[in-house]
Amino acid sequence: MPLLSNGRLLFNQVPKGYPIPGITTVYDESQTIDLENVPLEGGFLTKLLVISVDPYLRGKMRESGSFSYSDAYIIGEPLYNYGVGVVVRSEHEGVRPGDHINGVFPFQEYIVSRNLDGFEILDNAEKLPWSLYVGVAGMPGRSSYYAWKEYSAARKGDTVFISGGAGPVGSLVVQFAKVDGLKVIASAGTDDKVKFVQSLGADVVFNYKTTNTRDVLAKEGPIDIYWDNVGGEILEAALDNASVGARFIECGMISGYNSPSYHIKNLIQIIARQLKLFGFLGNNPYLNEKYDKDFRQEIPKRLANGELKYNEDFTYGLKNAGQAILDVQTGRNFGKSIVVVSEE
Amino acid sequence: MPLLSNGRLLFNQVPKGYPIPGITTVYDESQTIDLENVPLEGGFLTKLLVISVDPYLRGKMRESGSFSYSDAYIIGEPLYNYGVGVVVRSEHEGVRPGDHINGVFPFQEYIVSRNLDGFEILDNAEKLPWSLYVGVAGMPGRSSYYAWKEYSAARKGDTVFISGGAGPVGSLVVQFAKVDGLKVIASAGTDDKVKFVQSLGADVVFNYKTTNTRDVLAKEGPIDIYWDNVGGEILEAALDNASVGARFIECGMISGYNSPSYHIKNLIQIIARQLKLFGFLGNNPYLNEKYDKDFRQEIPKRLANGELKYNEDFTYGLKNAGQAILDVQTGRNFGKSIVVVSEE
Repeated sequence: MPLLSNGRLLFNQVPKGYPIPGITTVYDESQTIDLENVPLEGGFLTKLLVISVDPYLRGKMRESGSFSYSDAYIIGEPLYNYGVGVVVRSEHEGVRPGDHINGVFPFQEYIVSRNLDGFEILDNAEKLPWSLYVGVAGMPGRSSYYAWKEYSAARKGDTVFISGGAGPVGSLVVQFAKVDGLKVIASAGTDDKVKFVQSLGADVVFNYKTTNTRDVLAKEGPIDIYWDNVGGEILEAALDNASVGARFIECGMISGYNSPSYHIKNLIQIIARQLKLFGFLGNNPYLNEKYDKDFRQEIPKRLANGELKYNEDFTYGLKNAGQAILDVQTGRNFGKSIVVVSEE
Repeated sequence: MPLLSNGRLLFNQVPKGYPIPGITTVYDESQTIDLENVPLEGGFLTKLLVISVDPYLRGKMRESGSFSYSDAYIIGEPLYNYGVGVVVRSEHEGVRPGDHINGVFPFQEYIVSRNLDGFEILDNAEKLPWSLYVGVAGMPGRSSYYAWKEYSAARKGDTVFISGGAGPVGSLVVQFAKVDGLKVIASAGTDDKVKFVQSLGADVVFNYKTTNTRDVLAKEGPIDIYWDNVGGEILEAALDNASVGARFIECGMISGYNSPSYHIKNLIQIIARQLKLFGFLGNNPYLNEKYDKDFRQEIPKRLANGELKYNEDFTYGLKNAGQAILDVQTGRNFGKSIVVVSEE
């Protein structure tokens, strides 16, 4: 079989602001692979089908050595994130050709893996689209489900405010909150996104670019729970409109990922209103141990029977992944951003 | 009996920065009282012995109508806070002359109260100095005890950082943490305060005005618990030196009470390090219900037998209370600030 080019998206340069395709990241076709003969050394060869683009990737595009969420990307090496691939060849006794593998993959068309550490062979009894396993049935879904259960202390009649309501995390949280009997206020960045969040059952949805967040919260609050995906000025508004004892679930602060952080001037409200703030990451092992079983039993079924809604934003081809990464930082994506690397 | 002047400390003007004696607060002797004949209408007459000066009073010196810890002081009316008085006369069946009453009193030498709502007649089986009931055996002591129990999740071997370590709250927390087997890092604002905190058993104590907090925390951390009395730049340093999953107990942010808030630029660490922040007030009813009984059984005894140490800073005479209030904001006090209003 002839050599194929094995396309990769490489981390090229630490960005100062937004990650620019062709500068921050570059698509590279210089490597080749012989699918039939590449040595597996007891491992398996996977063709990457879909790979996830998430806001947190921006935090990995930094100088190495500085502490953050997780390790920094390495200049000249492929980026990596959650993906789903299909096995092409295998010398591993636990893996068969045709198996679908979920885990953290490099942004690379074909990958040889030595073992299953960190990977899972997807059973997918519900026949969900594979892309869901990096979205609502994967890390973003788990983030939503775990933290809502662990930190919200939601009581029927509570009011929750969710920023980034149209994203994969926010849109699930909207639905969890409605099932729990809450009044849901949500923000999004375009009128189309607002309509989508309304269709999920949220009570009050607004475009934060055209409507003043403080005005909405003053009228519709106070809020008992704030699910924060954006930080900055919106977080400041939430602090001023929280009820005594409110819970703030700190999931993301995207407003500060690509520009200097906003000066939040009212942190004293944490004390004055006796707030609890919970910062967490989707890969928290404690939460995973506690809630993974329930998540697996509950969420794929609810997705399959249409009870839980979701929205996906596909980008086709790894060469366009750099643009998808930028779009997630600027909010141009509408729904879970997925790069479709190869067809099955 | 002749009319006595009944001195009061009045709230005179909302301060822009520090509360200045004679401007923000004024001492007033224009009211008089006839101790033998003042009508009690079924209530009781108390002579105020001691009244507490706390950092949080600054938050009450604001325009009315803005939300904060608690109600704003009213221009032209006396300030008020926790105090202990002795009953001079009573028409109330539950109160006898000579009883010592603890509760929130106006800054006023003699007070007629209609009933015991919000007051407690002190039993004081341990014969503690009355002043302790507005300090380590009172609200500041409860704040320390309740929040340490509720939020610290302290485990032997953990490292805790306590800012404001020489204050009534901080100095108790230092001692609770040592009993629990923690490594204790504490900061204070003078070398004398540093020595005092060292005498409480803290492992690493430094003067934050002459030593860089970040350097200390980088060397002695990471910290598993941060007890925050100051906020601002010190909180920012603590965020950068927290272990994953650390608990931040937000008790005060005095660095921002008298000047514009510092721009904390690394709130993203709340997510990156998966921190929990707990804001609370000393009068939290949930915490009081949960821990008051234990506090009463444990703390006065430990104070009486010398097991728990404390420091008090007395100001004599209500006419000097305005200065005491300023001193607590600037950190000139050394230990719990108490105004001795009258001798018994």
